[in-house]
Amino acid sequence: MFKKISIPENLSIAQIIREHRMDISKHDFDYHAFVLGQSPFPVPNLIQEALIQGANKGMYSTATGIIELKKNIVDFNQHYFKLNLSSQDIFISNGTKMLIFMIISILDGTFILPTPAWVGYEPILKYLNKKYIKLRLNPSTDYELDLPDFENVIGSVDRPILIFNNPHNPTGAVHSSVKLEKLTHILKENNAWVIADEIYGLLTYDEGFQSLYSFYPEKTFVTQGISKDRSAAGYRLGVGILPKEERQYFIHQLEALASTMYTNVSTPIQYAAVTAYSINHELDEYMANVKNIHSIVGKYFSHYAKSLNLEVSTPKSAFYLILNFNPLREILEANDIYTSSQLSQKLMKAPYYVAVVMGAAISVDEEDFIARIALVDYDGASALADFIKNPPMNNDEISQFIDRNMFHMKLGFKMISQFIEELKKPV
Amino acid sequence: MFKKISIPENLSIAQIIREHRMDISKHDFDYHAFVLGQSPFPVPNLIQEALIQGANKGMYSTATGIIELKKNIVDFNQHYFKLNLSSQDIFISNGTKMLIFMIISILDGTFILPTPAWVGYEPILKYLNKKYIKLRLNPSTDYELDLPDFENVIGSVDRPILIFNNPHNPTGAVHSSVKLEKLTHILKENNAWVIADEIYGLLTYDEGFQSLYSFYPEKTFVTQGISKDRSAAGYRLGVGILPKEERQYFIHQLEALASTMYTNVSTPIQYAAVTAYSINHELDEYMANVKNIHSIVGKYFSHYAKSLNLEVSTPKSAFYLILNFNPLREILEANDIYTSSQLSQKLMKAPYYVAVVMGAAISVDEEDFIARIALVDYDGASALADFIKNPPMNNDEISQFIDRNMFHMKLGFKMISQFIEELKKPV
Repeated sequence: MFKKISIPENLSIAQIIREHRMDISKHDFDYHAFVLGQSPFPVPNLIQEALIQGANKGMYSTATGIIELKKNIVDFNQHYFKLNLSSQDIFISNGTKMLIFMIISILDGTFILPTPAWVGYEPILKYLNKKYIKLRLNPSTDYELDLPDFENVIGSVDRPILIFNNPHNPTGAVHSSVKLEKLTHILKENNAWVIADEIYGLLTYDEGFQSLYSFYPEKTFVTQGISKDRSAAGYRLGVGILPKEERQYFIHQLEALASTMYTNVSTPIQYAAVTAYSINHELDEYMANVKNIHSIVGKYFSHYAKSLNLEVSTPKSAFYLILNFNPLREILEANDIYTSSQLSQKLMKAPYYVAVVMGAAISVDEEDFIARIALVDYDGASALADFIKNPPMNNDEISQFIDRNMFHMKLGFKMISQFIEELKKPV
Repeated sequence: MFKKISIPENLSIAQIIREHRMDISKHDFDYHAFVLGQSPFPVPNLIQEALIQGANKGMYSTATGIIELKKNIVDFNQHYFKLNLSSQDIFISNGTKMLIFMIISILDGTFILPTPAWVGYEPILKYLNKKYIKLRLNPSTDYELDLPDFENVIGSVDRPILIFNNPHNPTGAVHSSVKLEKLTHILKENNAWVIADEIYGLLTYDEGFQSLYSFYPEKTFVTQGISKDRSAAGYRLGVGILPKEERQYFIHQLEALASTMYTNVSTPIQYAAVTAYSINHELDEYMANVKNIHSIVGKYFSHYAKSLNLEVSTPKSAFYLILNFNPLREILEANDIYTSSQLSQKLMKAPYYVAVVMGAAISVDEEDFIARIALVDYDGASALADFIKNPPMNNDEISQFIDRNMFHMKLGFKMISQFIEELKKPV
């Protein structure tokens, strides 16, 4: 009778952990929460201040986004990504997830979803009854899109639409401009649309990040937001850049859909975002600091996990890495662990209490033992203050910085390693 | 290839007027804007203050709504509507429209939509490919649901779901408890689900408003919000009360849908709503004042329109009335006006500049000449201050209050009357 839908696993586990921590004094343990991909840092003061100024904005506003915000988004994208846009290219929604939901809903064809993937895409594709195929990313190409592989897949489907999450959640992969150029060539050959989810663009550690839109503006939707680099995930505001081709048609469709579903994004939040998209020294410094902390944390834990003999990805952006249990398949099976649900449930129980996201939630098979590790379970406010006061300059200082601020996460990795050692013991 | 959707007419006309007024100095006229159903008053200070306090809430929150808010909603509904609820009965979304979208999307059956109707229902039903039939409300029953009529319709359909907007937008009709009791009897007999959109409940002028939920909690979804009586439409937060039957199933479906579509309602906005749903003298007084102003305005303009020989409804709540041009059909047709689009376009042009919503937008036929008049095109802040300082105590004072604060709307009615006089002149 009713359509069956289920709750994304990261959100339901996050809710369990949230409730556990609300009553933490009643428990004798805490979880190592590698689940929710949320910035741990406080919302920049400047953005809070702008929301405070916008508190009196009780009126409805336009469905596509207020013009002041669109103008700032144009300048921001020129400044940070060297994109040439106009206000008419911009569409605002209630968070990047809602935006991706809406874009997917107005596109028809075969979606190509590289996996592991962000937890949000597949539930949306399923809910909207869209046709899609998956393409497994592999360590052999540093979890980047394998272009020959991709060329085979795209050639085999009707009206292809690539979901291109770059920088990539959860592997941390970032595609170079050379790679993007080659990718564009394939996309053009196949007349493909792209949803380029670039929400982690400004959290790229070292090399500069390049938007696919600079190469393929004709048919690329870009999605961005203020959740990750500006730590305002709870505000719920996402930004879409529309492809140059059929732009008028798409903006009209998105506007009609927004009008039908929710009228407009919260007006005070839109006014706060005007500031969040301003080019501003204070904000720039904030974003540089949080990026640098994520960079330190991402590199440190990737390295640390390897030192514990765990097989992990080497992130170049964002705050995730992939932990690959597949090489341990025999040992897992010897311990009656045949699916990733069984594995993640064991990890979550005593004495490990490690919460990760695996399997269907990240769009891989239940028998594919890879886990998403979000590296954000620490007190961001004090880590940021510590970082500003004592920016760690060498490996020793980094290690001390991690021990001062992210010791609980370090224990989490130790627990994973201990879990594996236990498995290896003869039964 | 793509699904065709269109923008609700009230929103697109509102946008034209918004842009016109932004550059008002460039024009030599202003519209009489009877279009957008938006509270003209400022957001209560208390709620603004709460949003300011919540500006630092940058984190994701639960998909169904934060518990502090749900608790206050329970108490608020006990206090104002005598409903016995628990937190588990409550679901929060990005505005009441989004909530109705989600509820409609998880229900299957035949929706019964009394018309004229709020501009939002039919686009949602169409977008979601839901089966529905309309039931025309009539002046003969003061635009209330005609129960014998309704009984015939509900008996003729499979798995009926009534969309029951009470108080009613746009007629201003309010159903008495006697009527609700009789309605409940019919609903029970037919095992019907109901979406009771009661967003205008606290704007009922004289008699106390009764929620359908007190009569039929088993299968009634109630929708409420902070847009109308608390003037925070732009904040975008809607409240759902779930039916007692299959409650667990529904909450899970709504939670899954929210998680798939938008994660959570803006966290700072939810914290502001905790205060918006508190039982509080200042807020109570605010709501009483705006209700009294709407009452004065609704009654005054209904009476005034009748004195101009216009046929209008007599609203008992909210801030709309229905203007019925059907008795003028012959005259309209003699002037080559055969559809409501033609009529509303003529009204919007020189020398009248009257903007109303007609036809498909309010879910009636193009040949059905009734118009929705929203009575909110005035400066709410100064009207509210004036009302508090000099509450009008008799008809003379009311008339002066209207002339001081709503003169532009009065001119709008004069323009409509003048338009009709012009039509009557021999060509």
